[in-house]
Amino acid sequence: MKQRIYINDVGVRDGFQIEKNIIPTETKIALIDTLSDTGIAKIETTSFVHPKLVPNMADAVDVLANIRRVRGVTYSVLVPNLKGMERAVETHLTRGRIDEINVFMSASETHNRANVNRSCDESFADFALMITMAKDAGIRMNGTVSTSFGCPFEGAVPEARVLAFAERYLALGFDGVTLADTTGMANPAQVERLAAAAVQRCGKAELTLHFHNTRGMGLANVVAGIRAGITHYDGSLAGLGGCPFAPGATGNICTEDMVNMLEDMGYDTGVDLDRLLAAAVKVPAIVGHEVTGQVMRAGKTMHLHPVPEKLYTR
Amino acid sequence: MKQRIYINDVGVRDGFQIEKNIIPTETKIALIDTLSDTGIAKIETTSFVHPKLVPNMADAVDVLANIRRVRGVTYSVLVPNLKGMERAVETHLTRGRIDEINVFMSASETHNRANVNRSCDESFADFALMITMAKDAGIRMNGTVSTSFGCPFEGAVPEARVLAFAERYLALGFDGVTLADTTGMANPAQVERLAAAAVQRCGKAELTLHFHNTRGMGLANVVAGIRAGITHYDGSLAGLGGCPFAPGATGNICTEDMVNMLEDMGYDTGVDLDRLLAAAVKVPAIVGHEVTGQVMRAGKTMHLHPVPEKLYTR
Repeated sequence: MKQRIYINDVGVRDGFQIEKNIIPTETKIALIDTLSDTGIAKIETTSFVHPKLVPNMADAVDVLANIRRVRGVTYSVLVPNLKGMERAVETHLTRGRIDEINVFMSASETHNRANVNRSCDESFADFALMITMAKDAGIRMNGTVSTSFGCPFEGAVPEARVLAFAERYLALGFDGVTLADTTGMANPAQVERLAAAAVQRCGKAELTLHFHNTRGMGLANVVAGIRAGITHYDGSLAGLGGCPFAPGATGNICTEDMVNMLEDMGYDTGVDLDRLLAAAVKVPAIVGHEVTGQVMRAGKTMHLHPVPEKLYTR
Repeated sequence: MKQRIYINDVGVRDGFQIEKNIIPTETKIALIDTLSDTGIAKIETTSFVHPKLVPNMADAVDVLANIRRVRGVTYSVLVPNLKGMERAVETHLTRGRIDEINVFMSASETHNRANVNRSCDESFADFALMITMAKDAGIRMNGTVSTSFGCPFEGAVPEARVLAFAERYLALGFDGVTLADTTGMANPAQVERLAAAAVQRCGKAELTLHFHNTRGMGLANVVAGIRAGITHYDGSLAGLGGCPFAPGATGNICTEDMVNMLEDMGYDTGVDLDRLLAAAVKVPAIVGHEVTGQVMRAGKTMHLHPVPEKLYTR
């Protein structure tokens, strides 16, 4: 029996949110519908952030009202604050079902203040209100601890602080917790250590790891997380996403590169890699620039080639 | 006490050999001299391949005659055949010291035939002659098993076959063996398994792993190799190198990205990462195109940033 690993694609949210060109709503819907047919476990479909801050998420309601929901796929949204929570719940009740809401705060006080203009305690005061709204509406809640593996302003983040925030989410009644490496600072030794501690202390909840490949360690960190017992991973189709501090740097780990690796390693992702790659190759035209996905360029590992006339390589 | 990991940079050979523009000899010498001052363990400086096949290696003798040798750094060259071996030994005796010669054959019969126009047995017949020449000249010999983790023509390669070739090198008197993932087909589970078997059967020799990042698994494979007990790794400055079957695909794993990860994990690479990055940032201008190194774009992991006015990320 192969071990199951669950993949959550965040490309249409975490990826599209930083794209300068406005992506048409029907393009987003078509891409989400394509993803739904790949066997992927979860899709983060959109975000209820203020449209002026993130213009590409202004069509959140229309996206949710028009995607085709496939049985077995969890459709989630990102919510940054109480106002977004109200919009999300209203959308869920009137326009289109939301299976899960994902909220976030940063383990680093400085990053949380810069990102959402709140102290960590203020964020959790909001979450206490949000969880009631979500439970009343029958929506699952996932809480993200951003900068869990390092803060671009403060540097190292104490592991005890990350674990305390994860437990604080669960104490409020959240269904799952995501530890996010927001700017790609995690290394595999650190991931294995912190993930093992998280499994020990919060293992009854659904634990997810969210990695960026900013410094090339993304897939190595996935392997480290699996070794520690974590079975849920975020990825981004075609490697969409970025890093606000490093123009040209790679962003989130690439979903199809992760699936290719995990299937090669003998894990069951439930994903049809050919279908996923067919979706990924459409992304450069959608966003209007090259992307960082590598398997879409090189082909799946066992994609064989005819023997050439002359070769010289090692 | 931190565990020591030994890094061999092959960028000026494996990287430059596929560059279309001819890189001036003095540029190569300056780059090798810069690398020599980073604390790196080994540099693959050039190749004695036929100049018509690989024009960028036509200046092998001039490179070896003019680089500055730093105590503690091993200066190696790649040799593809007996003719190259003769040239290498003559260069060593008359123009510039060679510490180690690296030869190669492929675990896949099809790949070996396509690459060097020989059967695997014919390659080893040549190696038997070469090892005598090298010992007479006082040069160390390293044997590479290419396509150890998969062949782009045949697909899977039996592990027993790879191990048998590694032992065959050692039976001839070779000092070290490199298992090379020539086209980026290795995955971490496979690496840990094969590397552990290699350590068990050939652990008295210096064992090196050579990875390509073609499908994004390069650094994950390094971590897997270390877990199996292998302490020597090839990398390529700035991520130079490529894949003949996938235009635009990434090539060798990037030396400075590997060093950044290993130092973050608590290993001692002996390398001054700042000096290495100072060398890497010169590479795009040298080759005339963008490169795939990520730490040179994003900065070292603990490179901190000022808090911006407004941020929105996760």
